[in-house]
Amino acid sequence: MSEWRKDPIVDRWVIIATERGKRPFDYKEIVEEKKAGACPLCPGNEGQTPPEIMAFREVGSEKDTPGWWVRVVPNKFPAVMVEAQPFLRQRGIYSVMNGTGAHEVIVESTLHEPGLDSQTEKQVEEVIWAWRDRSLDLRKDPRLKYIQIFKNTGSAAGASLEHTHSQLIATPLVPAEIRQEMEGMREYWIRKGSCVMCDVIRQELAERERVVIDGRHFLVFAPFASRFPFETWLVPKEHQHDFGQIREEQVKDLASALRAVLRKMSVMIKNIPYNMVLHTAPVNCPEDRHYHWHLKILPRLTVMAGFELGTGYYINPTPPELAAHALRETQEVYPLHERPLTEVHRYV
Amino acid sequence: MSEWRKDPIVDRWVIIATERGKRPFDYKEIVEEKKAGACPLCPGNEGQTPPEIMAFREVGSEKDTPGWWVRVVPNKFPAVMVEAQPFLRQRGIYSVMNGTGAHEVIVESTLHEPGLDSQTEKQVEEVIWAWRDRSLDLRKDPRLKYIQIFKNTGSAAGASLEHTHSQLIATPLVPAEIRQEMEGMREYWIRKGSCVMCDVIRQELAERERVVIDGRHFLVFAPFASRFPFETWLVPKEHQHDFGQIREEQVKDLASALRAVLRKMSVMIKNIPYNMVLHTAPVNCPEDRHYHWHLKILPRLTVMAGFELGTGYYINPTPPELAAHALRETQEVYPLHERPLTEVHRYV
Repeated sequence: MSEWRKDPIVDRWVIIATERGKRPFDYKEIVEEKKAGACPLCPGNEGQTPPEIMAFREVGSEKDTPGWWVRVVPNKFPAVMVEAQPFLRQRGIYSVMNGTGAHEVIVESTLHEPGLDSQTEKQVEEVIWAWRDRSLDLRKDPRLKYIQIFKNTGSAAGASLEHTHSQLIATPLVPAEIRQEMEGMREYWIRKGSCVMCDVIRQELAERERVVIDGRHFLVFAPFASRFPFETWLVPKEHQHDFGQIREEQVKDLASALRAVLRKMSVMIKNIPYNMVLHTAPVNCPEDRHYHWHLKILPRLTVMAGFELGTGYYINPTPPELAAHALRETQEVYPLHERPLTEVHRYV
Repeated sequence: MSEWRKDPIVDRWVIIATERGKRPFDYKEIVEEKKAGACPLCPGNEGQTPPEIMAFREVGSEKDTPGWWVRVVPNKFPAVMVEAQPFLRQRGIYSVMNGTGAHEVIVESTLHEPGLDSQTEKQVEEVIWAWRDRSLDLRKDPRLKYIQIFKNTGSAAGASLEHTHSQLIATPLVPAEIRQEMEGMREYWIRKGSCVMCDVIRQELAERERVVIDGRHFLVFAPFASRFPFETWLVPKEHQHDFGQIREEQVKDLASALRAVLRKMSVMIKNIPYNMVLHTAPVNCPEDRHYHWHLKILPRLTVMAGFELGTGYYINPTPPELAAHALRETQEVYPLHERPLTEVHRYV
């Protein structure tokens, strides 16, 4: 029988629909059309992007030339811009504001591959450091209140470029999703005296059926009220509200876990489309230490349709217990092009 | 320059992104693959669906045989079921409930066509009456608190059958989206002494640039903070909280407006995929007369990606003013198979 399950943090119910059940191995590989033309994110084509904001690159190599291994550039078609002032005004009953913000692209590798899972573990660490560095830099602008780091992989997840990259949009507002999570976490803390995410980790570790990887610093699991088949959360085991405070040993463990779970997904369903979102506490606001930051992987094997858009509730045909079991059982097989990075120098 | 626009009812901001702007006529026709095999919703194939719940049919014709012009059946793969009791229980910190509810399919016509816009105006009226009748019938079950009527057209919008149909999921909970709208409308009323949707109508009629059809009983317009290109709302001009109270002259006007705007969309972008959601006040709860019911058409020409899923905010590349202008200018051309209905009898 189907079940209504409530997300432990926000007001979101999910119907785990066994009647329209799809077992993990019912999903078929996704066919992606190869994009034609030169890739603007490949080394040698640096001139096709706006000038770089930062890069991890070989000593002596020039800005906007090859020699980098992670490169951050402004989005060529920005949704928002730092130049605009966040001036709020009324048009009759409507509120409107200039398109203030920052919209950046993090080129995650020199390899033209669609996902982070085809990269070395070391390379994934570098990407996480780039996210952290941008997050610390952007919060120096007091107008920005939230830094949303996300990744779209596959056309069903909205990716328009094949080459592995993530994006960042910094906003002058704390987004609704974050505010709802903040409120849920704060209320739980007031009512129960503990962090709901820490309690989720405790229950998942006790029950184990939804755990995918039990890392040293991160727990990787399919959430109880998964909205999407194979939805997976990566959560730091210690209570930490701000992703910007991530430490070196955590970066290593997160890189290893993230690469492994994405690899498992790719091995199970070739070209699996997914969005990844990093949820963390707002910046330039009174610090909210109730918050517990985390990374969500949201595979896009189902279509959000009228029910989801109309209600905000979701129908998920694959129970998270089955999804986690399948992910645990799937062996990670890595492609062959493991390539050492040249001289990674990092200032933590 | 891009703009952040706030929805007047809920906490939802939309970036109207002119930099990545797509003019209305930049959108191309959508190619839909023809589905193979017999259609379970076509007349003659009544045996392929579960037994009908109700139908508008010719006098003397038998249940589950041809002779109907609108037919309502249970979903063959229901997400929820009336048989289940909504018993809430805890599993550790998680809340879970049996999959109570109703999940029905409204077969909107005998014609195997994808949209309501290929139907006669009279036929669209009949569909609206069927929605109303099911809404009045289902609320007799006191366990059900909300009746979500929706329609998915095109595969990008999650439709799995071509034959024009809508769906209904009745839930034992008031969905988050509705609760947020209720709160927004109630707060506005307390603060300003009027209904925000009535004020939206007033401002739209004064400004006119987002109006698509100014009907006698319904206003059809592109909302100020449109999340999707060509998003269109159909709102009753008089304050009415409950769709179940719709009157005959309103049904006629809504049918005419709905068919016309869908036709305009189809003429402009062939096979435009869209979701339609009917938002109305909950049932079997203290009546909320602050609510103002409405119908939203949400075209799916863009992909909801990491930013949308991470923040709950949206990027819309087509300003609603341009969308409304293009829809106003587009002539409705109807296909040729206008066919009179045989003996429509209706008990209002």
